[in-house]
Amino acid sequence: MSDVGDERLADVLASLGMSTPCPVVNRPVLEANLSRMADEISAKRVALRPHFKTHKSVQIAQMQADRGAAGFSCGTVGEAECLADSGFDDLFVAYPLWVDGNADRLRHLQTRARVRVGVDSVESAERLGSVVRGGLPLDIVIEVDCGLHRTGVPSGGVLPIAQAAEKSGLHVAGAFTYGGHAYTAAGAAVKAGHDEQQALLEARDALISGGFEVDVLSAGSTPTALLSAGGVVNEERPGVYVFNDRQQVEIGSCADSAVALCVAATVVSTAIPGQFVVDAGSKALSSDRLPWMQGFGNVGVRTDLVVDSLWEHHGVVKGSGGIGDARVGDIVAIRPNHVCSVVNLFDEYAITDDAGCSERWPVSARGLNS
Amino acid sequence: MSDVGDERLADVLASLGMSTPCPVVNRPVLEANLSRMADEISAKRVALRPHFKTHKSVQIAQMQADRGAAGFSCGTVGEAECLADSGFDDLFVAYPLWVDGNADRLRHLQTRARVRVGVDSVESAERLGSVVRGGLPLDIVIEVDCGLHRTGVPSGGVLPIAQAAEKSGLHVAGAFTYGGHAYTAAGAAVKAGHDEQQALLEARDALISGGFEVDVLSAGSTPTALLSAGGVVNEERPGVYVFNDRQQVEIGSCADSAVALCVAATVVSTAIPGQFVVDAGSKALSSDRLPWMQGFGNVGVRTDLVVDSLWEHHGVVKGSGGIGDARVGDIVAIRPNHVCSVVNLFDEYAITDDAGCSERWPVSARGLNS
Repeated sequence: MSDVGDERLADVLASLGMSTPCPVVNRPVLEANLSRMADEISAKRVALRPHFKTHKSVQIAQMQADRGAAGFSCGTVGEAECLADSGFDDLFVAYPLWVDGNADRLRHLQTRARVRVGVDSVESAERLGSVVRGGLPLDIVIEVDCGLHRTGVPSGGVLPIAQAAEKSGLHVAGAFTYGGHAYTAAGAAVKAGHDEQQALLEARDALISGGFEVDVLSAGSTPTALLSAGGVVNEERPGVYVFNDRQQVEIGSCADSAVALCVAATVVSTAIPGQFVVDAGSKALSSDRLPWMQGFGNVGVRTDLVVDSLWEHHGVVKGSGGIGDARVGDIVAIRPNHVCSVVNLFDEYAITDDAGCSERWPVSARGLNS
Repeated sequence: MSDVGDERLADVLASLGMSTPCPVVNRPVLEANLSRMADEISAKRVALRPHFKTHKSVQIAQMQADRGAAGFSCGTVGEAECLADSGFDDLFVAYPLWVDGNADRLRHLQTRARVRVGVDSVESAERLGSVVRGGLPLDIVIEVDCGLHRTGVPSGGVLPIAQAAEKSGLHVAGAFTYGGHAYTAAGAAVKAGHDEQQALLEARDALISGGFEVDVLSAGSTPTALLSAGGVVNEERPGVYVFNDRQQVEIGSCADSAVALCVAATVVSTAIPGQFVVDAGSKALSSDRLPWMQGFGNVGVRTDLVVDSLWEHHGVVKGSGGIGDARVGDIVAIRPNHVCSVVNLFDEYAITDDAGCSERWPVSARGLNS
């Protein structure tokens, strides 16, 4: 194999009978990531409610529960159903859910887990209330916008929603926010973490002024989780930290050595000079790319060797320092930009440890995106 | 429902018990697209070998076969296996395949179908030869680069590969190319179609000069298929034409009315003024976006109402002409940029016709990307 190839990765796939492209997880790095976040959040006396959407794996959820996770955050009812199927019983659909065709699913989910749902409008609160009326009690958490300007009301605007929710028979548990503007540039997480704290402080005060008790003040992303935890914020919902990815490295949120997942790919063409082509394209790496990033992934820890362009089954790799002596048939490790979108494209992980033991784990909630 | 909502789409999902986000196919438009391409390619006395990677549906493959498709093109061995499982027996893996852990799969596939495989290097030809030695005969087709500069050798460089393949016991069937530079701008397809013809003409001459018989000269993409068909080119491999998408409309490859698939999505938030948020994010629409395109899809046929930014479960829609009176709970039809990547994210289609009949069809080869 050439200087860009990874003999060990090739052995892992061969031992498991898996073909490229394939997501490969370094288990010791995964476990270190899980323990570090659990310990550091715990030291701040804040609940860790990891986001399931990143790994969608009930095995990894169990590892998080074993390290003290207070429950799980989900992006969809489908993800929550998957966790409930495996016995996890404290679930937050951290999303401004509109309940319609999925009403029966939500009611059934409530019979198996304590369920919290996000809302950011009077209409959706009233809708939720009418759907669960006469059934089990439902907690709602009001989404506030702390600067991302995606979803959520201004902190000062929580009261009408809380009042509508209460009138509809729902229990108002508190407020949540997401400081996703942490991803706008390296270093942006400090302000985003502060914004999360400030928005939740204001939301709490507004709710209290309206006579509500506030149990939940939930924030967090991987870059901001340790920055906003504490003070009024009593829950954090990071997701990506389990694996990390190229984005996290580039914004300074983790070390190179904390990236636990790569996509194993095969070099299939060196026909065009100055580049090689791998069999990981957009159906393996996704096309996720923050506006300020170059390319769709990089090879191993060679940050200069970048997936410059993508088709569905082709990733074209170019490097400012040349492409080495890459050869057709080499197995290379690609570090993807955004690991959540990558995992959702695969049915299985290859899991390896330093001792050479390997396993196949299912991506339990693959595609459960509604 | 508001002026951006689609009552009929909501009825389809309700009747099928499906939740948003969900790909919805207009069957009459699909059938018209299938028939039009079949008729026009046939009129040029050229074989149509549609690419399976777009729809990954054995039902739609059967509709293509019923309209005279000569066989199918696939991106991966997994897609070819899926087609063979349903009895389709003339399959071209139109990809410079490196055979390693997948060798047994290729040999087994050969027992069920006539299989052709792409190559663009001496090394991969020799490898293929060693893998199938003593087994069933294998056709290879040499990939030539006609200007996309992704994979493929220059047309003049086919002979060493053909000779290595023959020496390795493989049968050299011809050459193929892909004029993907048709997507660089509106109108670029004319040159790309010409480039496909020219590259295959040169490849044919080079192969004949080396004493090879040439059966297959295969080109094509949806924008170029009807432009390069005929003359030396005797096979076309378009994929996207079955559904079309926003890209095809924007490059002028199809009419608005020829787009057969939308992603049904629910408006979940109108909390931030000047935008609304749907539950179709990157895990439903993919993040595919040609460099010159704005956003990640548009709403219905309102080209100004664009999915401006994406997270995994959030699509933020903005419009130069305002966002209408969008309301939480509206079901909207999103036209995605690139339909192939969208289909791969879902397990099922909703299929509808003008008479109000609806069905669920599986995405048979969803995720079979290796």
